[in-house]
Amino acid sequence: MAKSANRVGLWLVGACGGVGATALLGLESIRRGLEPPTGLIGHLAPFDQLRLAPLDHWVVGGHEIREATPWAAACEMHRQAGVFRAETLAACAASLKRCQREIRDGAIAHCGQPVAQMADRPGVHRKESAAGAVERLAHDISSFRRRHALRHVVVINIASTEPPFAVGKTHQDWPRLSKALARHGPSPLPASSLYALAAIEAGASYINFTPSLGIDAPALRQRAAQCGSAFMGNDGKTGETLMKSVLAPMFAARNLRVLSWVGHNIFGNRDAVALDDPANKAAKLRSKDHLIHDILGYRPQTLVSIEYIPSLDDWKTAWDHIHFEGFLGTRMVLQFTWQGCDSLLAAPLVIELARFAELAVREKFAGPLTHLACFFKSPIDVGEQSFAAQYATLVDWAGAQKSIGRTEK
Amino acid sequence: MAKSANRVGLWLVGACGGVGATALLGLESIRRGLEPPTGLIGHLAPFDQLRLAPLDHWVVGGHEIREATPWAAACEMHRQAGVFRAETLAACAASLKRCQREIRDGAIAHCGQPVAQMADRPGVHRKESAAGAVERLAHDISSFRRRHALRHVVVINIASTEPPFAVGKTHQDWPRLSKALARHGPSPLPASSLYALAAIEAGASYINFTPSLGIDAPALRQRAAQCGSAFMGNDGKTGETLMKSVLAPMFAARNLRVLSWVGHNIFGNRDAVALDDPANKAAKLRSKDHLIHDILGYRPQTLVSIEYIPSLDDWKTAWDHIHFEGFLGTRMVLQFTWQGCDSLLAAPLVIELARFAELAVREKFAGPLTHLACFFKSPIDVGEQSFAAQYATLVDWAGAQKSIGRTEK
Amino acid sequence: MAKSANRVGLWLVGACGGVGATALLGLESIRRGLEPPTGLIGHLAPFDQLRLAPLDHWVVGGHEIREATPWAAACEMHRQAGVFRAETLAACAASLKRCQREIRDGAIAHCGQPVAQMADRPGVHRKESAAGAVERLAHDISSFRRRHALRHVVVINIASTEPPFAVGKTHQDWPRLSKALARHGPSPLPASSLYALAAIEAGASYINFTPSLGIDAPALRQRAAQCGSAFMGNDGKTGETLMKSVLAPMFAARNLRVLSWVGHNIFGNRDAVALDDPANKAAKLRSKDHLIHDILGYRPQTLVSIEYIPSLDDWKTAWDHIHFEGFLGTRMVLQFTWQGCDSLLAAPLVIELARFAELAVREKFAGPLTHLACFFKSPIDVGEQSFAAQYATLVDWAGAQKSIGRTEK
Amino acid sequence: MAKSANRVGLWLVGACGGVGATALLGLESIRRGLEPPTGLIGHLAPFDQLRLAPLDHWVVGGHEIREATPWAAACEMHRQAGVFRAETLAACAASLKRCQREIRDGAIAHCGQPVAQMADRPGVHRKESAAGAVERLAHDISSFRRRHALRHVVVINIASTEPPFAVGKTHQDWPRLSKALARHGPSPLPASSLYALAAIEAGASYINFTPSLGIDAPALRQRAAQCGSAFMGNDGKTGETLMKSVLAPMFAARNLRVLSWVGHNIFGNRDAVALDDPANKAAKLRSKDHLIHDILGYRPQTLVSIEYIPSLDDWKTAWDHIHFEGFLGTRMVLQFTWQGCDSLLAAPLVIELARFAELAVREKFAGPLTHLACFFKSPIDVGEQSFAAQYATLVDWAGAQKSIGRTEK
Repeated sequence: MAKSANRVGLWLVGACGGVGATALLGLESIRRGLEPPTGLIGHLAPFDQLRLAPLDHWVVGGHEIREATPWAAACEMHRQAGVFRAETLAACAASLKRCQREIRDGAIAHCGQPVAQMADRPGVHRKESAAGAVERLAHDISSFRRRHALRHVVVINIASTEPPFAVGKTHQDWPRLSKALARHGPSPLPASSLYALAAIEAGASYINFTPSLGIDAPALRQRAAQCGSAFMGNDGKTGETLMKSVLAPMFAARNLRVLSWVGHNIFGNRDAVALDDPANKAAKLRSKDHLIHDILGYRPQTLVSIEYIPSLDDWKTAWDHIHFEGFLGTRMVLQFTWQGCDSLLAAPLVIELARFAELAVREKFAGPLTHLACFFKSPIDVGEQSFAAQYATLVDWAGAQKSIGRTEK
Repeated sequence: MAKSANRVGLWLVGACGGVGATALLGLESIRRGLEPPTGLIGHLAPFDQLRLAPLDHWVVGGHEIREATPWAAACEMHRQAGVFRAETLAACAASLKRCQREIRDGAIAHCGQPVAQMADRPGVHRKESAAGAVERLAHDISSFRRRHALRHVVVINIASTEPPFAVGKTHQDWPRLSKALARHGPSPLPASSLYALAAIEAGASYINFTPSLGIDAPALRQRAAQCGSAFMGNDGKTGETLMKSVLAPMFAARNLRVLSWVGHNIFGNRDAVALDDPANKAAKLRSKDHLIHDILGYRPQTLVSIEYIPSLDDWKTAWDHIHFEGFLGTRMVLQFTWQGCDSLLAAPLVIELARFAELAVREKFAGPLTHLACFFKSPIDVGEQSFAAQYATLVDWAGAQKSIGRTEK
Repeated sequence: MAKSANRVGLWLVGACGGVGATALLGLESIRRGLEPPTGLIGHLAPFDQLRLAPLDHWVVGGHEIREATPWAAACEMHRQAGVFRAETLAACAASLKRCQREIRDGAIAHCGQPVAQMADRPGVHRKESAAGAVERLAHDISSFRRRHALRHVVVINIASTEPPFAVGKTHQDWPRLSKALARHGPSPLPASSLYALAAIEAGASYINFTPSLGIDAPALRQRAAQCGSAFMGNDGKTGETLMKSVLAPMFAARNLRVLSWVGHNIFGNRDAVALDDPANKAAKLRSKDHLIHDILGYRPQTLVSIEYIPSLDDWKTAWDHIHFEGFLGTRMVLQFTWQGCDSLLAAPLVIELARFAELAVREKFAGPLTHLACFFKSPIDVGEQSFAAQYATLVDWAGAQKSIGRTEK
Repeated sequence: MAKSANRVGLWLVGACGGVGATALLGLESIRRGLEPPTGLIGHLAPFDQLRLAPLDHWVVGGHEIREATPWAAACEMHRQAGVFRAETLAACAASLKRCQREIRDGAIAHCGQPVAQMADRPGVHRKESAAGAVERLAHDISSFRRRHALRHVVVINIASTEPPFAVGKTHQDWPRLSKALARHGPSPLPASSLYALAAIEAGASYINFTPSLGIDAPALRQRAAQCGSAFMGNDGKTGETLMKSVLAPMFAARNLRVLSWVGHNIFGNRDAVALDDPANKAAKLRSKDHLIHDILGYRPQTLVSIEYIPSLDDWKTAWDHIHFEGFLGTRMVLQFTWQGCDSLLAAPLVIELARFAELAVREKFAGPLTHLACFFKSPIDVGEQSFAAQYATLVDWAGAQKSIGRTEK
């Protein structure tokens, strides 16, 4: 473990799910040299000169609503989805079990029926105002930082997708929202936003890896600006949507007219259970769908479905059928099937988001970290949805940081 | 038709094949407003302010080795592959038939067994030295330019793929090659290179839309430099390889390790007949395969096949299976099937290559037109194989031309 | 056209849709030798000795609810879906137009919102009791038979799928239902069943090519038995479900355990418009789904969707993902994509159902024609859902008929 | 273990490959109740009343040409292909290791270059005449039977595919072949046939699970008839070809005309190494290809490839593209991808072939066991290639055996 001065913290909201367990196992096994850093983009040429915090500088904790542990989650994934080498899992057992001490009670406001049903951790059902919840969650993060003498903490929301939340007048400015939070009764914010506020109040950065509201309302943005917080989101771009953001620009650049783009996703992990509820699913579908229109500049018919198929467990299988018109009205078809393991695609992005966000804060960035757009389905304050263009932006940012780094020395 | 001063010429080598017939029908039907310009990238926002020669400024002629006509080729495609609207075809009949007057005898040196067998146009079998052939072909192009008072001619090779041609000592400098060409006996160059030389000698630009040798030998490059010719190639990037150049960068940018990339292509048009010969196929496979290694920077196993399946006619169907390793050694799979009509994908690229090349010459560019890399599987003098990066280069070039254009006025 | 004594009639409910137009064009073009009999199973070895009525003995008429004609429908399909040879269509134009004289007003009781909206033929909205509607429809069929001196008429329902209809007490016996029909007010039966009754009353056979209720209620079966009617259904097995009935037995016969079977269907013709309504879709999904359980003998998770994608028109594309467990718990996957033209798959089955049903009636069969099970997704009174087994039954039946035929002579 | 009187033997040629190791592990784990009998068809309703020898009556031994063990093979598969539960493997370790005692030196005559290179077991290179080899191999089998007091032994060839072997005059009658075998010099038979002869001489049954020659030559059939041997083959039908034998009958039964059927297979296990040699591959391709013609009764274009892709290991992935013509010449496409684990598909068939063959011998069957056709790509003496029809034959056979069984008691 690193010396105190260099330690940084990763605080995972939903720490005991598949992504959390995988991120933990990955951090531990890669820093020990048990596994190669495949999937971690910080090791790629454009970024390997950046002063990203090394894996062994990171301490991990988090919020959780279920009676669960990262170790149990990792074992379940190994058994059911067939992932992780048995030797790697065994070698990291002690470390994963130890992490359990850093798990605290989460929040469940407006998280939707299936998620509320999973919330068997007694503490999450305590009576408290929204402001009280924020204070409690912020205290968890601050204590974590102090306890481990961390230079900075990055909070990343990897909890289940919440139903769409109607942003209204109350959410337009911080003073008004602040008053609403103090009132008892139904929370004026969903859990994802309570965590965001808690991160702001605790001086941490906030990354929303889900399509939930998170920090994406004017009042919350105001508060973040007041506190000089860095943040980014929304919704990690891991599989089918990554493909969309890679393929749609091709059709645009060849002036091939997309007539319809149909995407069917099937999978069976806990995330899928949450998405099996129409309310929760609605938010996800919106996040997966918009970028085709954004990239093409017109609106072909799009259809995207997500279905819960337990036998597939963590193996997300997507079939996309793209019907397009070429020269002289000729209609052609591209189909793809993507068979990826969702948590294993998400976890390395979570780790790198923590590392890139922490570096940005160290380099005095605040506000939306728009150079991280390539990680997200719906990047905050970024209109460009082409993956290649987003990635080029990150490479450029890295180039700028490196030259700054060189001149500083 | 445009006034004389603005007329430009497109000279197609292999004018009566599917691509040639489609390009002709496309030029005619789109300039008449019978069809939309789908597939023509010159109509996209980054390029629509460029002073590309409008479609009705183009006159088309070409070389051919078969007793065939563009009109018959278009009718055959309509009947067998089900492409082209019947009304469009009928409306353009006179124009396509008229084009037949501009077809001249081609050349068949080292073009491979199946192509030689198709060459039923008597004139292509005349006895002549390679130099004689070049002179004859160049004369065809020059006469065409004079006959129609064309400002410039772009020669584009869309003939069948030739077998790989061994470049030796003779091909290292122009004086040596020049002497070899004058000798009688087997030609020291394949037909694609004779056409390239003819284009150079006739003051035309030369674009190689095939993986044949074309202009890609030191001696030919020397000659082009002496004459100030503009040129580009090789091998139009229309379908499966386009997909590779779009998808491989995604794996690279996510640090996902490609283990194997298998691509099987099946189709049944005349191009497939040529490729059904192992010698001719070899050149094509090489051109389709290399870019995965170039983009990834390491060498996963790659396999690419092309098979002749007559029932598919012009409908190229490709299945690609990409096996890759993600975080913690987890193996995942992406598969795609591409069902595209080959000639309909190629023809708009041919038209735009002519327009962009002509503009470049007008703007005083010479040598390899590397900004056109995004059109090719194996772009001359360009190492970057990512489609998005290549396209960005073209957009940048266009931006530079536009600002020059503005200041000139 | 055949001599009077041999003429038989095919009465199509929904005659001016894609299936109706295709069946008409097929009958006409194949009997004239313009097209081969591909898709007509009566020409296969096991059946070619049966005394099926030849194609030129058939006269076609039908009910329709839209202001539409078979000729317009055929032209629209040619234009939009790219089916039918232009020459064939032109050669049969007069015949298709002539058929328009034999189209009568249909019925729309309980046919669902999207279908009712299409019903722009004024006569279908007349005020009448259900009994009155049956009488009117039966009169249309009887007149048709007399007008053309037909030996027998087969009524086939190829109209849009109706929403599921709740069968209650009223539908348990004929006297009770008979009284209910005579009352004014909402019809106690959906349109598909009114047509079934009309067929019974007119002495015709009734085939239900859709998943609508049709004849499948006790009271209707009673009435059919009283009148000695032959009938069969439900829901033609044309594409994805045909595949299911072929593949599921393979998994059963290898003792491979199906874990989940997901099928997504996309298409864009008028049938899809009707199915885009959740009520109408429900009936279809039920019909497409049950047979996997029936064949396997246990209940893996199944999911089937049908989505309306206008750009695909008549081209039904289905993706099925079958997750199964083999030896020692090893999980494997079979995926297929089916790209079929729906009307072109259905129409030859409609013709052969007419021919096989007419032969059965000639051979004195009545009641459910269970030997025709291989044509249906949900064959009446047949538990066996394996296509191979169903087909073997039809072959056996044909064998029996042939030997009877031989001894008779 | 069963009492002596009931014990039966399974002798595997190529015992230490993936199929052998899997069969051993399967026998052991299922008889102990550690794994369910998924994949064993003897447990299906049509067969569960047959007096098949229970799994715990079987003793396993075999020939092998490599320095390898079933235990090492099983561990390698677990590690590389991710198959077998770790607990199951551990529980059966002692049993698999013990089996090693029953492995004897195999033979390598005409087995092809890649197989010969793998043959690192010194004993397989001994100098011996073909007759000597047969005698040695037969002695191994007989000793095995005596050592374990086995009622009967079934020999199953699961070794790598041999190159096609030219059957000539020598192979037309047994006396002539017998003489040739006794001569020194190159063997007049490939290894697969030497094993077949050894089985015959040892009084065992012989099953050829590969496309190698095996027992399929007149002289060998004569010898088998003289000795009253039971036998069957050739080439187990496990995946892509199973699909062909299931799907081709569907096209036939719907009178849909197959235009082309392309099948590409990729996998990476040891079998694939052997098949990577053009000579060995030729035999396999022939076996995978013929049945489409046999079933359809005409010859559409067929193409089948097998490629060695090491990253896939035992996971055979096949893509089949079936282009067919329906009603009125409409061209449609069915594609499937099959992702199966080859050894896991083969092993349960091997076990059941042993059990069904042993029962047949007990019931006094001899000669070709044609009722077992559904297990094979190229069933000996069976023209019917439809899987459903072949399976129906086995069900009928079982029905006949059961009724005999009942009357006997």
